[in-house]
Amino acid sequence: MTRIVFTCGDVNGIGPEIAVKAFKKILKSKNTNQIIFACPKNVFEYYYKLTDAKFKFKIVDNQSSFSTSYLNVLLLPDTKTKLGYPTKVSGKIAYHSIIKSLELIDNNFADVLVTSPISKEAFSLAEIDFPGHTELLAKHENNNNYMMLFLSEKIKAGLLTIHSPISKISRLIKKDKIIKAIELINLTARKDLMIENPKIAVLGLNPHAGENGLIGNEETEIIAPAIKSLQKRFDVSGPFVPDAFWGNKTYKKFDMILGMYHDQILIPFKLLNFNNGVNFTAGLKLIRTSPDHGTAYDIAGLNKADESSILQSYKYAIKIFQNRNRSIAESKSN
Amino acid sequence: MTRIVFTCGDVNGIGPEIAVKAFKKILKSKNTNQIIFACPKNVFEYYYKLTDAKFKFKIVDNQSSFSTSYLNVLLLPDTKTKLGYPTKVSGKIAYHSIIKSLELIDNNFADVLVTSPISKEAFSLAEIDFPGHTELLAKHENNNNYMMLFLSEKIKAGLLTIHSPISKISRLIKKDKIIKAIELINLTARKDLMIENPKIAVLGLNPHAGENGLIGNEETEIIAPAIKSLQKRFDVSGPFVPDAFWGNKTYKKFDMILGMYHDQILIPFKLLNFNNGVNFTAGLKLIRTSPDHGTAYDIAGLNKADESSILQSYKYAIKIFQNRNRSIAESKSN
Repeated sequence: MTRIVFTCGDVNGIGPEIAVKAFKKILKSKNTNQIIFACPKNVFEYYYKLTDAKFKFKIVDNQSSFSTSYLNVLLLPDTKTKLGYPTKVSGKIAYHSIIKSLELIDNNFADVLVTSPISKEAFSLAEIDFPGHTELLAKHENNNNYMMLFLSEKIKAGLLTIHSPISKISRLIKKDKIIKAIELINLTARKDLMIENPKIAVLGLNPHAGENGLIGNEETEIIAPAIKSLQKRFDVSGPFVPDAFWGNKTYKKFDMILGMYHDQILIPFKLLNFNNGVNFTAGLKLIRTSPDHGTAYDIAGLNKADESSILQSYKYAIKIFQNRNRSIAESKSN
Repeated sequence: MTRIVFTCGDVNGIGPEIAVKAFKKILKSKNTNQIIFACPKNVFEYYYKLTDAKFKFKIVDNQSSFSTSYLNVLLLPDTKTKLGYPTKVSGKIAYHSIIKSLELIDNNFADVLVTSPISKEAFSLAEIDFPGHTELLAKHENNNNYMMLFLSEKIKAGLLTIHSPISKISRLIKKDKIIKAIELINLTARKDLMIENPKIAVLGLNPHAGENGLIGNEETEIIAPAIKSLQKRFDVSGPFVPDAFWGNKTYKKFDMILGMYHDQILIPFKLLNFNNGVNFTAGLKLIRTSPDHGTAYDIAGLNKADESSILQSYKYAIKIFQNRNRSIAESKSN
């Protein structure tokens, strides 16, 4: 049995809808896990009706009545929604849902966290000073050595820089940072994903990976030396020409990929894993996954949202939890 | 009848091989076009044997004996090759092949140009001061209003910046430049591709298209105002969130796309048009297409290269030539 807590995300986006749709599927099959949903009651009830959900649930305000035989809706205060728009209120509720969920995990009433999409803009309106979940959760653990990692059957790819403007990326490319990132990718592959000797690919930054310094020199001066310094310890290669790496299907030869910036990974990842990608925060003690898409305000409240990605996130969270337990068990038995 | 001249590209890469393989296919079917190949004799003969070509050819040193009944190999001096490596010699020959081809077109002995891949590094070793064909051909016409445009059945996408390092892209994003680019994309769609009222999409620069200024402000301050200023004249929208634009298949709703930088377009274009993409230099008088891939030094001389992309380039060059002639005929008859 794994105990999973889901946040509601931004209540004006599709978060609560995809969560409820995922619960429908999870609770229909033979479920042995304990599912908790940190969500305002009025929001939950709206989507329960909208999606014609019909599964058993119980509104609870603490962990004493958690059960595997129904959905445990962990009560957040009722809230005003404004479907399709980031608001100060939606930012506050999204944050509150995360905090409540973290409390459960910190006090060992839940094992893993699945987060629904939030809005950076709503967070900003609510004066919450984090660009996203990843940074918030890292801060919660006081951990600087984390990574946004995207998971699917086809591709497992991490980001060196996350939500940085294009104008600032170049100066964030540092040798020690790349080395740390490759070490973390290797560790995550082994411990969380059970890939024993992962083959790791590192992408270049510039068009044509700089073409030997003719289009930028980050590859020759920073990325290549970082890779070289690790080749005795790990099976790591690159820097690869980004468009050819994806276009020529070179990515299929690697277990793990390290990209230099957001869209270099997210564009191909989303194209290749339509609706099925998972965002995992690697490097933390906390196991947290989430869908690879955003709040999708344009279709909020319309019963049009696709739950595939959050359902995959749920499955990966459990898998990683089990893998870590196995790793611990194995290391103890040795 | 269309008269097409092919360059050999970098002779140490796959250029001559894909060209000869394309000629095999073109000359096998009922060919009514005049095909010219500007290539050193020894290089041509190597690939003619390697690919077991068997089509009729004639080595010619000027246009007087051009014919549609065989491949016209326009003689360049024999050259030393070093398969798999950019060299000063390969840079010089690649350049020489382009110049010879342009002479034919300038003197009306050929209609369109299909170029094989060159190496920026070889050009640099040969002290030829152009990063690529696009810039060289633009200079040849003294034309500053050109664009690298990628063509396939699924996607037609242009680049605002071409071979710029990531560190320099932000400062190249200017309102007047975007306006010019959208005007050129619209004109090219109508005149060269026969798309009467093209729907044009413009991508953002930053992750999440800047999320309303939270991750960079090029979208709110430059790109959005440029789009807005043209919406009375054209069917243009954006800036779109790049990863969602590709991942959610939004691209399917548009005839033409304008991207801000190389890999934002080239990664999805190559993924979606595996082996079949075409690079077209829009805005020039000269009609020039080329494959969307590079010299592929790693497989040079091994008879492993795929000619699909150069074959598509040949077809698009002819199509654009015919479309332009039709446009001219129509405007005269009005």
